[in-house]
Amino acid sequence: MDSQQFREAAISSLDQIIIYYETIEDRRVTPTVEPGYLRKLLPEEAPQEGEPWADIQKDIEAKIMPGITHWQSPNFLAWFPSSSSYPGMLGEMWSTAFTGAAFNWICSPAVTELETIVLDWIARAFNLPPCFLSTGPTNGGGVIHGTTSEAIATVMVAARDKYLREATAQITDEDEREDAIALRRGRLVALGSTATHSATKKAAQIAGVRHRAVSVRAEDGYAMTGKGLRETIEALRGRGLEPFYLTATMGTTDVCAVDDMAGIAEVLAELAPPGQKGEIWVHVDAAYAGSSLVCPEYNTVLTTHFDRFHSFNTNLHKWLLVNFDCSVLFVRSRRDLTDALSVTLPILQNAATDSGLVTDYRDWQIPFGRRFRSLKVWFVIRSYGIAGLRSHIRDRVALAEGFAAMVRERSDLFEIVAGPVFALTAFKMRGRGEGASLDEQNELTKKMYERVLADGRIFLSSTVVGGTFAIRHNPTAVLVREHHVKPHFDILVEAAEKTLAEA
Amino acid sequence: MDSQQFREAAISSLDQIIIYYETIEDRRVTPTVEPGYLRKLLPEEAPQEGEPWADIQKDIEAKIMPGITHWQSPNFLAWFPSSSSYPGMLGEMWSTAFTGAAFNWICSPAVTELETIVLDWIARAFNLPPCFLSTGPTNGGGVIHGTTSEAIATVMVAARDKYLREATAQITDEDEREDAIALRRGRLVALGSTATHSATKKAAQIAGVRHRAVSVRAEDGYAMTGKGLRETIEALRGRGLEPFYLTATMGTTDVCAVDDMAGIAEVLAELAPPGQKGEIWVHVDAAYAGSSLVCPEYNTVLTTHFDRFHSFNTNLHKWLLVNFDCSVLFVRSRRDLTDALSVTLPILQNAATDSGLVTDYRDWQIPFGRRFRSLKVWFVIRSYGIAGLRSHIRDRVALAEGFAAMVRERSDLFEIVAGPVFALTAFKMRGRGEGASLDEQNELTKKMYERVLADGRIFLSSTVVGGTFAIRHNPTAVLVREHHVKPHFDILVEAAEKTLAEA
Repeated sequence: MDSQQFREAAISSLDQIIIYYETIEDRRVTPTVEPGYLRKLLPEEAPQEGEPWADIQKDIEAKIMPGITHWQSPNFLAWFPSSSSYPGMLGEMWSTAFTGAAFNWICSPAVTELETIVLDWIARAFNLPPCFLSTGPTNGGGVIHGTTSEAIATVMVAARDKYLREATAQITDEDEREDAIALRRGRLVALGSTATHSATKKAAQIAGVRHRAVSVRAEDGYAMTGKGLRETIEALRGRGLEPFYLTATMGTTDVCAVDDMAGIAEVLAELAPPGQKGEIWVHVDAAYAGSSLVCPEYNTVLTTHFDRFHSFNTNLHKWLLVNFDCSVLFVRSRRDLTDALSVTLPILQNAATDSGLVTDYRDWQIPFGRRFRSLKVWFVIRSYGIAGLRSHIRDRVALAEGFAAMVRERSDLFEIVAGPVFALTAFKMRGRGEGASLDEQNELTKKMYERVLADGRIFLSSTVVGGTFAIRHNPTAVLVREHHVKPHFDILVEAAEKTLAEA
Repeated sequence: MDSQQFREAAISSLDQIIIYYETIEDRRVTPTVEPGYLRKLLPEEAPQEGEPWADIQKDIEAKIMPGITHWQSPNFLAWFPSSSSYPGMLGEMWSTAFTGAAFNWICSPAVTELETIVLDWIARAFNLPPCFLSTGPTNGGGVIHGTTSEAIATVMVAARDKYLREATAQITDEDEREDAIALRRGRLVALGSTATHSATKKAAQIAGVRHRAVSVRAEDGYAMTGKGLRETIEALRGRGLEPFYLTATMGTTDVCAVDDMAGIAEVLAELAPPGQKGEIWVHVDAAYAGSSLVCPEYNTVLTTHFDRFHSFNTNLHKWLLVNFDCSVLFVRSRRDLTDALSVTLPILQNAATDSGLVTDYRDWQIPFGRRFRSLKVWFVIRSYGIAGLRSHIRDRVALAEGFAAMVRERSDLFEIVAGPVFALTAFKMRGRGEGASLDEQNELTKKMYERVLADGRIFLSSTVVGGTFAIRHNPTAVLVREHHVKPHFDILVEAAEKTLAEA
């Protein structure tokens, strides 16, 4: 493909993509294909000879599109969104043009430096405490990871090694120290709550440490409390185990609960004081809800205790208009990352690294090479401005408020389980009359939910919290507008009424 | 930015990108900026109001370009390449359009299914043994990771947990088993060689296991031998430690050595027989050189013993025209990945997963969400055809042969340290007269290398192998053509002669 052919192929693709976005709501949001559909459509072996682009592009609509779940559709209300925006897409286009494996500064200084700068912009816009700025008092800073799972695995490894390093600092013989670390590692426990995203448990599996979950209760809104944390820590220590890490969540997956940061900070100040040997590393997982911090009405309240914690991350690709993948991670002490993850090779030797003046981000993450992801962040922030990003958050919150008001108006059919909070509403069917049992409600809600999925006009997720089967409604996909909310709600009402009629 | 503005911005960007590629060799391949250059050019805080695209695009040339290392330049001969191709760029464009966090099948069946299919295509084209096919006899298959570092960390965690699971299978009490696993984990050792890429050591740091390197020697071409492996395993077992994992490299970072796969297989058949409890998981790291397997002259010989190993990966983004990032990982038993990495949440429940008929790739990797990376692989394979990919490999091998011939012709100045192999040649300066010492050669080669870097017309990497400082020449960047090789060599000759004259 020469550059003229590329130009034609790319413009033709662009036009097809624009039409895709402009007509996306005409498509069924979820596919109806059966498992294995694509294997029937493609040859078993790779083609020997090259094919013209026109033939390939034709197959996108014919073969790929039927297997696409349209995350950008305004009818996509499931899980959390994966946002897409035109400036974000331009960022990916330019990043691809600069293709390189930017594992250290000299691999492309702009890749490293733009990342540090836009992450400082975000830390300031989010009102994060100064410890998370690259220029802050604790030598912290930000880095872009792909997903929250990577961010959590990374900080957990850093926390584990920091804890073990401090615990064995007095041993000078290298072999003895390795043995002591190996033995001690077996006693370490990473903590989350029963409402924490599975990323924390998976990180513990990866890091080779135990995992325990602090129980959460309906009466606390499914948030972790200081009391619950205290009980867990004390019980573990009673067994000779050593909690070294905690994920505190701002916006849990099920219902967007916010863990009791004040309570957590207080308990840890007593049981494992920050800054002292044996401290428990607290990571704030704000994967989805973190983007709301761009608005003062959220960030003046919610960041209050963050200066007592060790790291924070949020996925700009969820709710802040940056295309997947882009999880921004901030740490209080970048040294903790590099101590755990730095490795070097003779082939990597270079004057800039030797000078100590540059950041080699490969030592802040699991992968070696890295994409130029800060470009899309830069383009999005500059195109929308902080004001535009705030509007985006507020508009979506308003859509959810509108939806929740409709749910409340039909209290004959529905009951809100949680929210609306951070634009998420979890609801269930009330059941017949006043005295419907939870089992009955669950059964009805499940049936109604399956009916909505089969209907296919909208796509939502379900969950189970405290034994309650609930449907989650999250209208934060970028293309959802006010005029979509009522028709969406009508589909739910229709499904509920039919389900009741059949019951 | 509306769709019309996007169309204009994207076409304007496309045109600028095409010009960038067409004139890339006029740019100095490495930047001359000082650390911190970009902070001086950008505001300290994010803009409050949005800016027009034209202003943003202007800054790409003005502010970003000066900090770019041009990996796509034909004057880029450093490390290993990061390939870029027009079909690869179109793949990224479409992947971005479909933005979604495809963590399970239902998130977009096409994302999962196309990945399985193109990875089977590659396994066949590379002549990998059937155990690495998704339809093969051992329930294996392929998955796309971002980088080799992620692939190795992932298989090491799988190997660790498999080993521990088997070692503690007889313990039925859950708490007791957790304690036994924690204790045993402390004895585990992951192995590589002293020439293995740092990704293996880093993976051991992440997985929380010990790491030891088998020594390699110049007389074995810096390849790991069965003998060396045997000595290491026996010594470790003598200390009560348990080797459970080994990285065998096809194409080491320094000099593209290939470990003695036959010798390794033989020693392990004796000391830790494959398929039996206590087996050592062997991962073949072919990050760079693996792409050569698309050619029969490589794949008929080099894959001979792979059926005795557990996993294999190569980065298509290095040498096979797919844009970064794209590391294809194949495993003999996908169950080993999912046993180690599977986690679930109520919100993820769906009928397709429950049916057991689909692959949820999130359980084959560290990240939760995933990009639609198979699109770019599909576009590249279809655009070039297997024949075109073979030509690409062979052309680059021929360029390196041509370069090495020139080096040999100037044996008054240079001596080849290793290669050419997989298009990589490592060479050094011979020094004055016949009897120059290694120290003298190292000193001269270093000085000459620094001169070449300062000159800036071409960019190469250096390394140190067996005490020898060597310059690596790797002409596999996509745009290198035959007419570039002689001028590149002339620059090296000029630098060598000047260095000698000054010595």
